[in-house]
Amino acid sequence: MTAPDFDSRAADALAADDLVDAWPFLSVEERVEGFRLLPPAEAEHVFLGLSSREQADLVLGLPAAERQLWMRQLAPDDAADLIQQAPEPERAPLLALIDPDTRREVTALLAYAEDDAGGLMSPRYARLRADMTVDEAISYLRRQARERLETIYYIYVLDPDQRLIGVVSFRELFAATPGKTVRDVMRTQVVTVPDDMDQEAVSNVIAQHDLMAVPVCDAEGRIKGIVTVDDIVDVVREEATEDIQKIGGSEALDLPYWQTAFRTLVRKRAGWLTLLFLGEMLTATAMSRFQDEIAKAVVLALFLPLIISSGGNSGSQASTLIVRAMALGEVRLRDVLRVMRREIGSGIVLGLVLAGVGMLRISFWQKLFGSYGEHGALISLTVGISLIGVVTWGTVAGAMLPFLLRRLGFDPASASAPLVATLVDVSGLVIYFSVAQVVLRGTLL
Amino acid sequence: MTAPDFDSRAADALAADDLVDAWPFLSVEERVEGFRLLPPAEAEHVFLGLSSREQADLVLGLPAAERQLWMRQLAPDDAADLIQQAPEPERAPLLALIDPDTRREVTALLAYAEDDAGGLMSPRYARLRADMTVDEAISYLRRQARERLETIYYIYVLDPDQRLIGVVSFRELFAATPGKTVRDVMRTQVVTVPDDMDQEAVSNVIAQHDLMAVPVCDAEGRIKGIVTVDDIVDVVREEATEDIQKIGGSEALDLPYWQTAFRTLVRKRAGWLTLLFLGEMLTATAMSRFQDEIAKAVVLALFLPLIISSGGNSGSQASTLIVRAMALGEVRLRDVLRVMRREIGSGIVLGLVLAGVGMLRISFWQKLFGSYGEHGALISLTVGISLIGVVTWGTVAGAMLPFLLRRLGFDPASASAPLVATLVDVSGLVIYFSVAQVVLRGTLL
Repeated sequence: MTAPDFDSRAADALAADDLVDAWPFLSVEERVEGFRLLPPAEAEHVFLGLSSREQADLVLGLPAAERQLWMRQLAPDDAADLIQQAPEPERAPLLALIDPDTRREVTALLAYAEDDAGGLMSPRYARLRADMTVDEAISYLRRQARERLETIYYIYVLDPDQRLIGVVSFRELFAATPGKTVRDVMRTQVVTVPDDMDQEAVSNVIAQHDLMAVPVCDAEGRIKGIVTVDDIVDVVREEATEDIQKIGGSEALDLPYWQTAFRTLVRKRAGWLTLLFLGEMLTATAMSRFQDEIAKAVVLALFLPLIISSGGNSGSQASTLIVRAMALGEVRLRDVLRVMRREIGSGIVLGLVLAGVGMLRISFWQKLFGSYGEHGALISLTVGISLIGVVTWGTVAGAMLPFLLRRLGFDPASASAPLVATLVDVSGLVIYFSVAQVVLRGTLL
Repeated sequence: MTAPDFDSRAADALAADDLVDAWPFLSVEERVEGFRLLPPAEAEHVFLGLSSREQADLVLGLPAAERQLWMRQLAPDDAADLIQQAPEPERAPLLALIDPDTRREVTALLAYAEDDAGGLMSPRYARLRADMTVDEAISYLRRQARERLETIYYIYVLDPDQRLIGVVSFRELFAATPGKTVRDVMRTQVVTVPDDMDQEAVSNVIAQHDLMAVPVCDAEGRIKGIVTVDDIVDVVREEATEDIQKIGGSEALDLPYWQTAFRTLVRKRAGWLTLLFLGEMLTATAMSRFQDEIAKAVVLALFLPLIISSGGNSGSQASTLIVRAMALGEVRLRDVLRVMRREIGSGIVLGLVLAGVGMLRISFWQKLFGSYGEHGALISLTVGISLIGVVTWGTVAGAMLPFLLRRLGFDPASASAPLVATLVDVSGLVIYFSVAQVVLRGTLL
């Protein structure tokens, strides 16, 4: 990124940039101190670029007399987000700092869950009546624009009951022949979202239709606000971060890495890690049933990590592919059988590939070093058959787990790579030793 | 998502919606057939909503006489993307279908790598001179708007050498007093990006500054085009999808799940899976060095999967946290030592937690069932010490691998959960058996 400096504000800008660079490493007190040293224009720029949580910390760190100035810089949706990030007892006082008109809008927004379309939307959209002429519409918009609109990219055409009957992009309106009416240039097919739609679903709608904004409507088709694409960029990044952290087998941090306190960082990882550890203990229990086999044929133990990890790896692949496809809306619950068919196929092919590689490796070592005694061929067969079974099972289990979790009302992304690996480990070793019992009966066992 | 139908176009819209719903499951021939049955307005809507690759497949599936109509619907940046998705021999003929003015713009865009700012940008930005009055500016923009601008959200102010000297949001211009000049209302501090900046970095700039568009400038500060936030939504989704698929241990699919052919799906997974399998074979080699120990104390084998998977799980957590923080620009190469310090700390604490749980479990089983013979306490100690070592090592190795990969010029996301698990498995079992040799010497071993 380059930020060319065109005038004497260069020095101030440097100070602001330095502050922004150092931001993640500063305590709240240091942030407040640095922030208060900035000239007003730079301070505003820095303030508006912060996340809602950082804004809340900063405003609450300022002396009471300075808070109002900053609360009034925010559009209603951003003010609502800030207030939702503040601790409960601070919320009412913060709300009271906002001017009465905006406060009414903010209060309405606070009724919605933060992660819903209603919690993301801005009530400051541009609106028109259908029977205005294009010229009337433009000068009417010019008056609306003076009172901070969220965007004039799209202008929404409402009937007298506030029901949405059409939309016109500003560019189209602007380019239209002056004598036409709004009705002549508006589109009547409007993509809308309900106010309780989850933000991830809203981001899918915006991405699929390549929209700059989407109107949020209630059940009667009345427009309540708009969600703009710049907010969606943040949503998409946040949701992907959460999913990736869950896929990696920890809780979502909800804060950037450096801003997460060490205690929190460890706590959010220890929970899942302990749960996985408890699950993995079943391998010790399962193994203890095969103690005799291991005692008779120690060579079996050599391939144990290889075989169970192959199941875990193929399961991780399958679960992350399905988790992501679900998040993007490509795969839905009702696709479960089609996914299962496809993944059984994938699992068998992948199992055959690994079995081939594994058997080749064992035969080579056997030829070169005679590593596996007189029954090398049978051991190779045991490993090969087990790999086909374990990889197929790992793939199918990994692909089905996200469906199961979603069906039960959990986040499919909790089907993390480590969780799938753990689940597959136990069944993997049972498959392996069972195959060994059959193949090696009468020889090694 | 609801798409209220306001007029007689409802039936057509249904057909279009049906087609869009079925799209992922249709062959190219079926798509072309369904598409040609749509009324023109619906067809345009469907066409513009497709990804570049789908547009390319569709256009190439149409009879030659129908292609020109669709190629001319596209803005230059979208046309360039479509052409980049088409097979090499088709590119020149497709380019020739575009009208000469646009073709010049498209040709300029084709010079940039698809994943760079230059490959994302549109050359159709709104521009003004600084000495125009606000009223002159608005009527000048009105003329520009007739020739399809990408956005008029921001208007860029250029000097006679095409150098960017300021920016004004349309809303500000529109709301300004008519007699003022553009210079009076423009901001002179403009965030810009160089034309060779990677698209992931561009998305970080747009998200951090909450921009609707960012201008792309060359080394002399001349503006070459703008990247708009709606394109960034797609970039953020694509990049997150790639990262998630890599973290899950497969190659990025580059296409939605259902559109990925079975062969491709299996091939993209088999590559990494085989590589991981070859790596995991080292466990068999390492284990063969400890065959005697296993033969003497089969009980050691029981805890092997538990211990090595704990290293793998803690490593997966650490690597995914760091991979994501790097992608978001929160963690940079130069932070390597600070990350290492922090993750050594995390690893030790997590190791202590798991060691505690594990030793408790062994003591219980020993008390209840006498499962581990006379040396239960020593086995418990072996497992506990090993867990601290393996989890600390897994955490540090998982956190450092993304740095190593980025340093070597690879994608840090290739530090997938399965790769980390595989790397940690070998060292995990060496740690475990080495601890056992020391703790159990003279008793079990």
